Amino acid sequence: MGFFSKDIKTLDDLFVHTLRDIYYAEKQIVGALPKMIEKATAPELKAGFEKHLRETEGHVQRVEKVFDMHGVEAEEVDCPAIDGILEEADEVSGEVEDKNVLDAALIASAQAVEHYEMTRYGTLIAWAKQLGREDCASVLAQNLREEEATDKKLTDLAESRVNREAA
Amino acid sequence: MGFFSKDIKTLDDLFVHTLRDIYYAEKQIVGALPKMIEKATAPELKAGFEKHLRETEGHVQRVEKVFDMHGVEAEEVDCPAIDGILEEADEVSGEVEDKNVLDAALIASAQAVEHYEMTRYGTLIAWAKQLGREDCASVLAQNLREEEATDKKLTDLAESRVNREAA
Repeated sequence: MGFFSKDIKTLDDLFVHTLRDIYYAEKQIVGALPKMIEKATAPELKAGFEKHLRETEGHVQRVEKVFDMHGVEAEEVDCPAIDGILEEADEVSGEVEDKNVLDAALIASAQAVEHYEMTRYGTLIAWAKQLGREDCASVLAQNLREEEATDKKLTDLAESRVNREAA
Repeated sequence: MGFFSKDIKTLDDLFVHTLRDIYYAEKQIVGALPKMIEKATAPELKAGFEKHLRETEGHVQRVEKVFDMHGVEAEEVDCPAIDGILEEADEVSGEVEDKNVLDAALIASAQAVEHYEMTRYGTLIAWAKQLGREDCASVLAQNLREEEATDKKLTDLAESRVNREAA
């Protein structure tokens, strides 16, 4: 994790550690999205993933801004959680041939990614406020709002079209 | 994943596969919670984890009921996502000595677990409805509601007490 055992001593250390975790996660997602864009069939899904790739690049920059505001180095720590979520996404989508069923699987995988990010940003925002860093909380909240909006769009797309075509 | 490549042909296959994924995940969570109960210091957190362990045992049974209703074998498939989330929970909590900071870390880890389950149950419910299995959707929705309630309780506990003591 980039820390040695017992190296997280304060809530501030835990905040910085978790910021490094989401920094790693956002970069992995930037790396994973092009493959999902390539696999997606429904034009709205492909376009949605493309838009979210650009947003995710912006999330990386906002996290870098928070490192800077908080006066710490922008470093990544390994995040087995996002590695596992992306590995599972890749495995499941590799097992599906039918284009419509594959779109349904891709949406489910993308929503698992969004939910991971939503929980981490929710935690980071609460800790930033507790540490008196309303300024950092406010930047992180911009990322959270975009993740929530993406998750909602994926639900709408699944329910309005993709699941029906897959069934 | 227990399936060979291209073995998910229909939305029904994808539903059963994802049910097996959450079945594995719920069982892993039953295995992980006792360690989290042991590490927790705040009495409300310890009691909350104990209650959630009993609930999670009930979730396993409800998932088994859905397998039965849908006429398929109750089997598990590997779920790298929950493995990664639990591995990360274990690593981070192993790095924290201060009791109050550890409670904050445990809450964050538990919320990552809840969010994973929430996204999977949300997906399973949508697919069950699409497949005309309102009966399965309704059993799965009971699990979803309990995960959402647990997540909310963890947020309240963090914001009302744990984060303040950790800061």
